[in-house]
Amino acid sequence: MRPNIKLSIIILVAAALACTAAVAGTQDPLPSWSDGPAKKAIMAFVYDVTREGSPNYVKPAERIATFDNDGTLWAEQPMYFQFFFALDRVKALAPTHPEWKDQEPFASLLKGDLKGALAGGERAMLEIVMATHSGMTTTEFEQVVKDWLATAKHPKTQRPYTEMVYQPMLELLAYLRANGFKTFIVSGGGVEFMRPWMEKVYGIPPEQVIGSSIKTKFEMRDGKPVLVRLPELNFVDDKAGKPVAINEHIGRRPVAAFGNSDGDLQMLQWTTAGQGPRFALYVHHTDAEREWAYDRKSSVGSLDKGLDEAQARGWTVVDMKQDWKVIYPFEKM
Amino acid sequence: MRPNIKLSIIILVAAALACTAAVAGTQDPLPSWSDGPAKKAIMAFVYDVTREGSPNYVKPAERIATFDNDGTLWAEQPMYFQFFFALDRVKALAPTHPEWKDQEPFASLLKGDLKGALAGGERAMLEIVMATHSGMTTTEFEQVVKDWLATAKHPKTQRPYTEMVYQPMLELLAYLRANGFKTFIVSGGGVEFMRPWMEKVYGIPPEQVIGSSIKTKFEMRDGKPVLVRLPELNFVDDKAGKPVAINEHIGRRPVAAFGNSDGDLQMLQWTTAGQGPRFALYVHHTDAEREWAYDRKSSVGSLDKGLDEAQARGWTVVDMKQDWKVIYPFEKM
Repeated sequence: MRPNIKLSIIILVAAALACTAAVAGTQDPLPSWSDGPAKKAIMAFVYDVTREGSPNYVKPAERIATFDNDGTLWAEQPMYFQFFFALDRVKALAPTHPEWKDQEPFASLLKGDLKGALAGGERAMLEIVMATHSGMTTTEFEQVVKDWLATAKHPKTQRPYTEMVYQPMLELLAYLRANGFKTFIVSGGGVEFMRPWMEKVYGIPPEQVIGSSIKTKFEMRDGKPVLVRLPELNFVDDKAGKPVAINEHIGRRPVAAFGNSDGDLQMLQWTTAGQGPRFALYVHHTDAEREWAYDRKSSVGSLDKGLDEAQARGWTVVDMKQDWKVIYPFEKM
Repeated sequence: MRPNIKLSIIILVAAALACTAAVAGTQDPLPSWSDGPAKKAIMAFVYDVTREGSPNYVKPAERIATFDNDGTLWAEQPMYFQFFFALDRVKALAPTHPEWKDQEPFASLLKGDLKGALAGGERAMLEIVMATHSGMTTTEFEQVVKDWLATAKHPKTQRPYTEMVYQPMLELLAYLRANGFKTFIVSGGGVEFMRPWMEKVYGIPPEQVIGSSIKTKFEMRDGKPVLVRLPELNFVDDKAGKPVAINEHIGRRPVAAFGNSDGDLQMLQWTTAGQGPRFALYVHHTDAEREWAYDRKSSVGSLDKGLDEAQARGWTVVDMKQDWKVIYPFEKM
């Protein structure tokens, strides 16, 4: 090859690379978000805290972002998905619990009478959770969760539950991480129900998943150590429990927090009460057609006080119907 | 500049860079460790789990290493440093607690009679901890810890406590992180006593520090949310509590664990019971001259069952006197 031809090729390749970089640099990191005020607020905040020389610059180590899960990252209707799991487990375990035939709330549940089963209120709910979530080792429970997720389908969409995650929020998680944020889950859901799938689905490793929990006990079985799940509540990671858990697990205040219900209000209050720039966002379920529309009076994921406080404080409120071009990843296919 | 001179300079710079890289590649990552069996075992393990194509290769996301703190990363004699903190706090708080003059264990403590104060055993100890560690917000407590560390001196060395960390272990932490490990603290010490200084001293961020804790409560004060520290134990991160806490906070089993006492035994058992390659190490305090020599019969950091199990299972035991050329960072100066 003649030197000047070689040089021309080098220049061409360099130009092509520069061009690719320029395109990548201007690529929309949140393509499923409409160009509305929510998207603008998110991007303005990220720019403000990550730009070197910004008066609001936040060091990467302090870029902590916490996310609720049910109703914020995946759907929660017609009821929390973990409760579907519990119901399926009651059915699966029934043959080894003949006493359940005459014992509430199990008797009603096994007859298909969900309303009757839940007539016992919180106590009935807790009994169902304990009967299905305790009595095995942590390793065994993890496998039960994985097996269930591999086959269970949502009653409305007939999709696996892990496909009913919000595409715009997946983009938001990736966008924050690309800008040096560490993303955490802070959910009322059971921590060991969430960890087996969140790394794959959200890119969030187990050590960044915080949730409700039951107690576990260290034991030796045949000379091997195991952790046994006990039928005893350890921590409820909801409402005022969320800042408590954030402090206990993360040990520093988030700079950004994302939720969808009154259960997230204290997390958003705690986050925005910190010094310097803070960001709080509520996902508002306004799309009855593509998802569900509910807020103040919903029995699941009620958003009432939180909506008022968001308006009073100028927090970002996502209007799902307006702000999200796509809800679920499978819509894109 | 003539083209051939320019070219020569480019070649020289490139050669210099390559040379620097080669030197860096062969630099000893653990210079304070003697070339004995402990150092060899550590480096062989790291090579084995990080080398691409190794049958024992561990993905970076799963390279979790957990470290005890007292006696493993910093000294713990003549008693746990956090207890010196508590004693100093009793003295500082005494003017606002006139009732302590007639109330044990405080009365003895204030007279300088430590033995008398501790005659009440665990209960007396707990009373001292609660009186000095609760009753303020988390933000206030953090400041109290920082202020104490800035002025307090160890009774023997007259050094700040944060200088009484082990230089070889600092190198080990950095070496593991350079090889893609995520390093965690799993200590019986109070988590909010440790977090204010560990990022600076060990390079371990607050969210990777696990410890004992008291309960906290979310409250609104003058319209601002605070977390108030309550005089109630939440979790004791010692012995069988360590695997429980590891599961709760990290959610996956470590591949390597480091301790110095029977309080770490269950953590080492839990770690090494996992599938695939695992590494467990005990720091054995054998150097009465440069540090302290103690093991089976010590009231602080007793290493008895753990020493037997380490020998039976072939865990690595560091002989401080033989294996460490330097104990504290200040010795190098």
